[in-house]
Amino acid sequence: MTLVYDFSATDGSDADLLGGKGAGLARMTTLGLPVPPGFTIPTSVCREVMMTGKFPEDLWPEIGEAVKRLETATGRSLGGGPVPLLLSVRSGAKFSMPGMMDTVLNIGANDDVVSILADWSDDEHFAWDVYRRFVQMYGNVVLGLDESMFQKVLSDLRTFRGARSDADLTAADLQSATRRFQSIVTDHADEGIPSDPFLQLKGAISAVFRSWNSDRAVSYRRINRISDDLGTAANVQMMVFGDLGDSSGTGVCFTRDPASGARLSYGDYLPRAQGEDVVAGLRNTSSLDDLRGLHPECHRQLIEIMESLETHYRDMCDIEFTIENDHLYILQTRAGKRTAAAAVRVAVAMHAEGLIDRATAVTRVEPVSLEQLHRPRVANSVKRSAALLHGVAASPGAASGHAVFTAEAAVEKAKAGVPVILVTPQTTPDDIHGMSAANGILTSRGGKTSHAAVVARGMGKPAVTGAASLVVDLESSIASAYGTEIAEGDILTIDGTSGAVYSGTVEMVEPEQLPELDTLLSWADEIRSIGVRANADTPEDAALARRRGAAGIGLARTEHMFMGERLEVVRTIILSSEPEARTEAMGALERLQVADFEALLEAMDGLPVIIRLLDPPLHEFLPSRFELEREMLRRVRAGTPIDDLQQMSDQVAIWEETNPMLGLRGVRLGLMLGNLYRMQSRAAVTALVRRIRAGGDPHLEIMIPLVSDVEELTRMRAVIEDEVATASADTGLELTVPIGTMIELPRAALTAGAIASEADFFSFGTNDLTQMTYGLSRDDAEGLFLREYLETGVFASDPFQTLDQVGVGRLVRVATEEGRAANPDLIVGLCGEHGGDPESIDFVAGLGLDYVSCSPPRIEGARLAAAQAAISSARATAP
Amino acid sequence: MTLVYDFSATDGSDADLLGGKGAGLARMTTLGLPVPPGFTIPTSVCREVMMTGKFPEDLWPEIGEAVKRLETATGRSLGGGPVPLLLSVRSGAKFSMPGMMDTVLNIGANDDVVSILADWSDDEHFAWDVYRRFVQMYGNVVLGLDESMFQKVLSDLRTFRGARSDADLTAADLQSATRRFQSIVTDHADEGIPSDPFLQLKGAISAVFRSWNSDRAVSYRRINRISDDLGTAANVQMMVFGDLGDSSGTGVCFTRDPASGARLSYGDYLPRAQGEDVVAGLRNTSSLDDLRGLHPECHRQLIEIMESLETHYRDMCDIEFTIENDHLYILQTRAGKRTAAAAVRVAVAMHAEGLIDRATAVTRVEPVSLEQLHRPRVANSVKRSAALLHGVAASPGAASGHAVFTAEAAVEKAKAGVPVILVTPQTTPDDIHGMSAANGILTSRGGKTSHAAVVARGMGKPAVTGAASLVVDLESSIASAYGTEIAEGDILTIDGTSGAVYSGTVEMVEPEQLPELDTLLSWADEIRSIGVRANADTPEDAALARRRGAAGIGLARTEHMFMGERLEVVRTIILSSEPEARTEAMGALERLQVADFEALLEAMDGLPVIIRLLDPPLHEFLPSRFELEREMLRRVRAGTPIDDLQQMSDQVAIWEETNPMLGLRGVRLGLMLGNLYRMQSRAAVTALVRRIRAGGDPHLEIMIPLVSDVEELTRMRAVIEDEVATASADTGLELTVPIGTMIELPRAALTAGAIASEADFFSFGTNDLTQMTYGLSRDDAEGLFLREYLETGVFASDPFQTLDQVGVGRLVRVATEEGRAANPDLIVGLCGEHGGDPESIDFVAGLGLDYVSCSPPRIEGARLAAAQAAISSARATAP
Repeated sequence: MTLVYDFSATDGSDADLLGGKGAGLARMTTLGLPVPPGFTIPTSVCREVMMTGKFPEDLWPEIGEAVKRLETATGRSLGGGPVPLLLSVRSGAKFSMPGMMDTVLNIGANDDVVSILADWSDDEHFAWDVYRRFVQMYGNVVLGLDESMFQKVLSDLRTFRGARSDADLTAADLQSATRRFQSIVTDHADEGIPSDPFLQLKGAISAVFRSWNSDRAVSYRRINRISDDLGTAANVQMMVFGDLGDSSGTGVCFTRDPASGARLSYGDYLPRAQGEDVVAGLRNTSSLDDLRGLHPECHRQLIEIMESLETHYRDMCDIEFTIENDHLYILQTRAGKRTAAAAVRVAVAMHAEGLIDRATAVTRVEPVSLEQLHRPRVANSVKRSAALLHGVAASPGAASGHAVFTAEAAVEKAKAGVPVILVTPQTTPDDIHGMSAANGILTSRGGKTSHAAVVARGMGKPAVTGAASLVVDLESSIASAYGTEIAEGDILTIDGTSGAVYSGTVEMVEPEQLPELDTLLSWADEIRSIGVRANADTPEDAALARRRGAAGIGLARTEHMFMGERLEVVRTIILSSEPEARTEAMGALERLQVADFEALLEAMDGLPVIIRLLDPPLHEFLPSRFELEREMLRRVRAGTPIDDLQQMSDQVAIWEETNPMLGLRGVRLGLMLGNLYRMQSRAAVTALVRRIRAGGDPHLEIMIPLVSDVEELTRMRAVIEDEVATASADTGLELTVPIGTMIELPRAALTAGAIASEADFFSFGTNDLTQMTYGLSRDDAEGLFLREYLETGVFASDPFQTLDQVGVGRLVRVATEEGRAANPDLIVGLCGEHGGDPESIDFVAGLGLDYVSCSPPRIEGARLAAAQAAISSARATAP
Repeated sequence: MTLVYDFSATDGSDADLLGGKGAGLARMTTLGLPVPPGFTIPTSVCREVMMTGKFPEDLWPEIGEAVKRLETATGRSLGGGPVPLLLSVRSGAKFSMPGMMDTVLNIGANDDVVSILADWSDDEHFAWDVYRRFVQMYGNVVLGLDESMFQKVLSDLRTFRGARSDADLTAADLQSATRRFQSIVTDHADEGIPSDPFLQLKGAISAVFRSWNSDRAVSYRRINRISDDLGTAANVQMMVFGDLGDSSGTGVCFTRDPASGARLSYGDYLPRAQGEDVVAGLRNTSSLDDLRGLHPECHRQLIEIMESLETHYRDMCDIEFTIENDHLYILQTRAGKRTAAAAVRVAVAMHAEGLIDRATAVTRVEPVSLEQLHRPRVANSVKRSAALLHGVAASPGAASGHAVFTAEAAVEKAKAGVPVILVTPQTTPDDIHGMSAANGILTSRGGKTSHAAVVARGMGKPAVTGAASLVVDLESSIASAYGTEIAEGDILTIDGTSGAVYSGTVEMVEPEQLPELDTLLSWADEIRSIGVRANADTPEDAALARRRGAAGIGLARTEHMFMGERLEVVRTIILSSEPEARTEAMGALERLQVADFEALLEAMDGLPVIIRLLDPPLHEFLPSRFELEREMLRRVRAGTPIDDLQQMSDQVAIWEETNPMLGLRGVRLGLMLGNLYRMQSRAAVTALVRRIRAGGDPHLEIMIPLVSDVEELTRMRAVIEDEVATASADTGLELTVPIGTMIELPRAALTAGAIASEADFFSFGTNDLTQMTYGLSRDDAEGLFLREYLETGVFASDPFQTLDQVGVGRLVRVATEEGRAANPDLIVGLCGEHGGDPESIDFVAGLGLDYVSCSPPRIEGARLAAAQAAISSARATAP
């Protein structure tokens, strides 16, 4: 095992071994760029340390050799003169983990070296600044002392001097700070700071490796799903000094503007500073144009390097540089972070420039980021700290409006043209009309997969959920957070991209036109093999879905059509003991449903529309007995009679379920409430006939939910076929209505072969399938333990957001294979939340599904993800 | 395809083709017994008719030929003289479906034949009785007329004549009845009764085949899980007349007493009667001893035939015979139905007599019937019609006691020595102590797998559940059924074997000693390969389980130890906001648990005891918010304060779940309520240590419920191992505690390979696994749709009683295979309700599971079923 790689010794192609930073430094060195020399201790050493608990025997001698080579190459000496060699040690894992792991700068500083440095630089201030920074960093990073102790010393000094920044302190002040730092170390640390530079180096390297397993690094990896086993590399590099007087400085530049995508114009430069000062943001930076004025030659060289790196990496690069005495040094390069819009522009532009092919362009944009492109957002100038509170960033985009606390109030105010934010502990299907009327949704409970989050994302509306610091008192219509009260009518702004909630309005940016997006998506459509349909229940959603490129409706949930004003009718059907009342209600609902379906078929003319018969648990349509009792209590106190409520409570009791999710719903309800599914099917077929007669090209398909046994499907299919046959006979039209089923129960997946013989299509309802496979109700779990499970790493990822491949995904695979074996014409799709998740799309594209179906705002992301899946699959199988 | 088989043409070995009755008739004919000649139209014809909708072309000509052979053999003529041939047509399927399908007797009767019959028999009464029976049966069975119309004619005649039975009517009366029957047919049927005997025969045969698909036959097959595809055979046979004067008669005998198992003594004989009269039970029958006096030669011959048939079939036979003019005829034989006790006695006796081997003896007893043997039952003399109401026969045995309506009342009265029946709409885990105190349980809701039923069976207590006609008003402590009120203290008797509920006491029979059972079970134990353990939570249950032959405890549910008086402590642990109160409650619970576990380990000394850590949903421990509101309403009306309830309601709200079955329970609770599982493990290990120090031989194992991901198990395992290690270090004992997991979520089964690497054993919790795989809460489904699903055949069987092999069973198979592949030492068991179900035992024995675990009363049945599984598997693989 090689323990040390000089930057000049490899071409930097092995990022697994060298880490991202080490690979970049080696690559740039090979390209002849002015990289301060150094070497990398590879990730294999970190892994060895994790496994064995100790460093390889030969490591320190080999590092000693490498340091000697450095001294030779630079003409500087570690711990000596005339020019002292100071070193940095930086972590660098395969995947970037910004700010998560440790760095120690200015290694080699001690009482002797500070004098040599002062002589060499002719700058006492500089020399002591280097020294105090070293002591501070070593104390904090290597010895684990609290950073605030050091900060306090500096702030006391600044106060004493009336100085605005550390730069205004004198060399004597810095010397004094250094000594006080050393006392802090003596007082608080178990061991001191060695003055031997090589011992300092050992300490720093050990600390960097140790930081791989720091709490924040572990937690970051968990969130970003990076394996704990990779380990980090450590990069040891000669220090160059941006703080060496006015002819020095440090900066960061991007080869393109990360916001707009424009070329060679974007960068920050800070004279007389070390790298950390730029990131800290304490001082205002200058632009690249300013740099041209200050250091014209360095500027020319930098532009050249930017061009060369971009051509080399064929991607937008983020470059850190330092100018030491008018000499330019490049310290790091990596792929630059960019906004969604910039990512799209850069990808399309780079293709136009001949740098990358279409497939590469398609892989350069994060699919989920596309959702932001169509929504207003909070301006960058607004500080996160200005927020009143923070919750879960549940649905991206920003919205302002008057706070309301009930769905009814939302509807009423919205009708009057007042923009509203619906504020509530949590939403239920009962609130759909209110959510639809609101500009944004704010809840105190529930996470990214709560009802509020899922519905808001489906509607393309901003939402912040699970804002635990928000207390909502629905009875008094007052919410409060950290002592601030929010009354009905108060203005709120929510930022669903960041989770921030502001009092009043803040500056917002409207979504921009982005023609490059259409170009990129057209490439994606050429590349992808899996189809993308929409989950859409209204003509508006259907029209939006069509604009975003959906190839039909994969899931039209009829239950949303049963809510709002129609709820009373539905309750009559379930609860009424009078057959006539029931029949009449059923008739009324049928007329409404015909119109619902007609509008959907019209909006998706020429494309398939899958209507799913009623699915949700009964309790979503019925009042809660608890609430009824509570209302009775109120009435009794007010002296009003309660007989009507008592009667309703008794009726509801018959249908009450302990676990409604596992109860009388879907096809079970269809089989028990004999006429319900027949009515829905008839309404759909009537709508089909009307659209044909109106000259349209409707493609109706009907889907039966919650099938656990083929017999359920067989019986319901017969009812639907009967309605289709009757309508065909009555109208003389040859009606064809494919009939399929949700696969959303484990048993349906396990008996898919039998079920496929009765189904024209399958659609995986992976929300329910995940609930049943895990035995986990997402609504309940969100509040009580799922978040903690994710934070503590019991679950590596949220199975409601990203399909669990080994469990749920195995069922999807088995059902697809066995369903197709039994019925080769079977069309197989997926219509759960996972239909919009790139990783899940990649997985099911690999299984050969025909399509995924997702909410309209996620369709573009799904098209892109589908193309990326095809590309990565092609690359994986390429010879 | 052969369309007709004369009885004398085959050896009757092919019951698939000939049906049970046809095979028996052919077999007896081959044995030379006096069977009236005839022929069988095989099941293949019935299947052909079902498939094609018409009879095979050659059928009727071939039947004509067969009738001719009959005429030749008997010297009688169909439709002519001097001795007329009359025929019976009887259905006969492979599996007996008593009374479900049709029979037509006396075919060949018409106006001409009635005179010839009168001449031949010299008995006008007989001749007209034959004729009127034919018209009546043909009208009812073939033409579908309502039987009551015919009965009314007869009862009018009896009234007119002052006759007690039809036998007291005159020949002229019967002639008049025949004519009136013919008018009824003319008036009500689409077609008349042909006078051509061959057309009559065609009509009767068609009707018999048709009756295979009658509603009652279909429903019977559904309940008894007989395939609809088998079809029935039709047997055409010469009529012999038991009603031909005093030298004739008819009877039924068993080769052994079906109740006691005694040999050659049991039979019923009715002089001057046709077979249907015996079954109808309108006249009192004579015994076999009486027969000896009336027909000594026939009696001798019958005893000889009984011996011969028993020797031939090597089983107890049920024989129908007719004596016509002092000639004995055997009309049918089949395996005789018997009580559980008789089955055991007969099986052991037949082995002693050398008739059957041990394996055969073991297959001769229904495993589920053994439960009855240890319980009192309602005497046979008590009429079912005397019952006040009927419910579901949920747990066998009978019990009497005073009605009580709450668990508290049950406990209180039982303490005072008063026997009680707990009457309630449904039970919850909260009621366990009341159920334990009661002699029997009666509920108005829930079926065979409701909480009440499952717990009662587990306790070995009689229960009748789902008595829908019973209205229980808990507030007023009054129940009522059909207008009869049941107040607290009223005496009730429930019969859990039949589902009947009686007012007051009825005659009961105590269970008898049955030493043969031990013999039979010892043979079963020699034969079976799968182990049988007990689900037992108390020392009493453990002791009973041991007596019944359990090889340890497969499942000790700690939740039952958390109920009753301890519930308050548990609520404190969950709800209290004060850490000290919580810690104190946890400590109190730990002390109690140590004693619980010690007692269990002592009762099962030397055998494994698997303690499952707390599993059930939280709501089982918490008061319902609905009930709290209701109580507040009461208090407000009474003018008492409600603050305490309001506070509790607020606390409970935090933990409230929409679907508690899918919520915070099992290992999730263990991981969230940090100390709970640690406390339970420590208590178990403390108990282990105490038992070792007391000189015992305890075998403690700890099981973790509701694991969905191996990580959950890994973390909990570490906690338990830590407790074991601490105790080992503290005591100096080398403690070994195998740690395993329930496999009760589909995902656990699907990722069993990974989970097995952290588990010493698996135990399939097939109750939950069934719920999750079907997405079906059994408590909710029972009331709302499961029963209807079963009645209408959507589900072929109740998946909570018999393991669903294609869905849930597939998961069991996959998990067993993959678990063992990953961990060859893995012990695999099953501890759901299915552990006591013979069909399920057969399935999992086939998968090679190590053991099943079931409630103590079902252990003997499980031992027997396990042996039967081994036998049928050996027979299936025999060359």
